[in-house]
Parts: sequence; structure tokens; C-alpha cells
Amino acid sequence: MAEVQRIEIGKRMSNAVIHGGIVRLAGIVGEPGGDVGQQTKDCLAEIDRLLALAGSDKTRILRAQIWLADINRDFGAMNAVWDAWVPQGHTPARATGEAKLATPEYLVEIIIDAVQT
Amino acid sequence: MAEVQRIEIGKRMSNAVIHGGIVRLAGIVGEPGGDVGQQTKDCLAEIDRLLALAGSDKTRILRAQIWLADINRDFGAMNAVWDAWVPQGHTPARATGEAKLATPEYLVEIIIDAVQT
Amino acid sequence: MAEVQRIEIGKRMSNAVIHGGIVRLAGIVGEPGGDVGQQTKDCLAEIDRLLALAGSDKTRILRAQIWLADINRDFGAMNAVWDAWVPQGHTPARATGEAKLATPEYLVEIIIDAVQT
Repeated sequence: MAEVQRIEIGKRMSNAVIHGGIVRLAGIVGEPGGDVGQQTKDCLAEIDRLLALAGSDKTRILRAQIWLADINRDFGAMNAVWDAWVPQGHTPARATGEAKLATPEYLVEIIIDAVQT
Repeated sequence: MAEVQRIEIGKRMSNAVIHGGIVRLAGIVGEPGGDVGQQTKDCLAEIDRLLALAGSDKTRILRAQIWLADINRDFGAMNAVWDAWVPQGHTPARATGEAKLATPEYLVEIIIDAVQT
Repeated sequence: MAEVQRIEIGKRMSNAVIHGGIVRLAGIVGEPGGDVGQQTKDCLAEIDRLLALAGSDKTRILRAQIWLADINRDFGAMNAVWDAWVPQGHTPARATGEAKLATPEYLVEIIIDAVQT
């Protein structure tokens, strides 16, 4: 039976699940209250933290899905933060679409698949 | 050439696709007409059925994406059913966002990646 | 350290990322300006092109996520093009939901996971 490792296991979800060298993170959000730029920074810092716990880092991301609560308003501001964070030469397959999130205070959520180093 | 196994193959999609020990399910919905709680129950029962066919079960889920047609109205009621179903200690990486579905009667759709037992 | 191969690496994302024999494509869109049928055709042609570059093809798709900017209006027209393109006997696990995309001109975006041949 192939091993599944779960990190920060909650009652509803785990923050990271590792199997076969692939790390799947939960949908990560920033702190409610900030604008989309600040929430994207928070979110990417949390992704860095979880990838480190899972034995990976941002140079090893395979796929990113980005959900914005208001894509027309916030696509540019999210991208400015993303572009400064994503490591050149190691950019993932990415898709971005609009989806309202768990509460209206959340403006951005990012879902990451990465490979362990 | 790595083997791909498909289960309940339709003309538009297959209900499950297995490769390398990983089971990917189609987006699963409940029966139209019910409220979101009932549709979530239907949906999770169908996921249990498909995972069993694919040689997996709900303790082996790696990732879940949940799409709600009206997240502001239905997030709590969906979660009540989810929380009673998801096995403690084996919770997946999860992300939930709002997306209108194939027809307005569908209130919830869940997309699962799991590993075979 | 497991090898990750990236294809058409951009500053923001790569168009395809390959790891362990699995090909993950970026969210692919059609040419803005066309109706949803034409954009779906463009999109699927681009997917064919990228899968070929990545050593795969449409008979080897594991999962597809389809995002439509207006699912109520465009679900049928997208499906007509999809149904003519998807290879019978090899249909992927598929999920379709509504998500507004990067700009209002984009009507459909498709996210593909496939396995190399």
C-alpha cells in the first residue's frame, strides 16, 4: 500500500498531502481585510512555508490554479505580486479564473502541486 | 507505454481514470432537485462508489476541489455533510470556490484525486 | 532529485510541465474575438500542439477541467466541439464550471493533465 503523508491535518482538510514525491497543497488564502496585493503576498508566503514543511520549494511547482473573487478588478495586482515571487526558469503551468471564495473577505486563493526536492 | 485504465467510459468523459496508482474522478454531482445538503450526500455516495470500483476509498483521497453554485448560501450546509463524511486523520488537501454548473439545478460538484489501496 | 521538464517557459508560467511521465498544461484559451465554438476549436488545437511537444496526445489525457465564462449560454456549443474532438474509448475525467477569465474576451479555458506515450 503506497504511503500517503499528511501535514497539518485538520478535521475538514489537511494543508498538504504528499504521495509518490508529489506535494498537493490545500487552497491557500491570505489574511482577510487586506487588498488583493497584500492577500497574494500572505498567500505566497504561506505556500513557501508549507512547501518547506513538505520538502519542496517554489522552484519545484508543477501546477498552480489561481482563483480571484473579482478577476476584472484584481488580475493585474495579483500578477504584480506573482511575477515578483515566481522563480524565473521554473514557472509552473498556471490557470487563473474567477471564483467567489469561502467568505467575501477572501480575494484570492491558490492551489499548488509541486514535487519534492 | 504506461497503462491508463478508464472506468465507465462515456462519449464525453470517463467517470474514473487510473494511472500509476492514482485515481482521477470526473466532476461528480448529486441528483438535481434536492437542496445542497442532499446533493452533497448524493455526490459523496457516488464518490464512494467510484473509488471502490477504482480500488480506492475515502481514506486515500489526496485532493478535493469543491464547486458550489452559490457559496455564500451553501458553504455551511455543504460542509456539515462533508465533515460527517470525511475520515478523521485522512483529510485531503481541499479547495472550495463558487462556480455555476452545467445546469442551474446542480448546486455542488466535487473533483477527487485519490490513490489506490 | 526528480527531473522536471518545462516547455515554452514564460516569465509568469510555462505552457507545459512534465514530471514522472505526467504532462500538466497551463490553462489554454482560444483567440479572443471568436464565438465559443471557434475559441474551443482554437483551444483544442493548441492542446494538440502542446501535447505533441510534450510527447503525448489526446488519447492519453487523464483529466480535463473546462472553465466557461458563461456556462448557461455556451455549454452546448463548447460540448459540440469537444465531442467531435475527444477520442472515443479514451475520454478523460472531466469537470466543467463557470469562471470568468483573464479578460472578458476569453470565453473558454481548458486545463489538461495527460500521460506521455
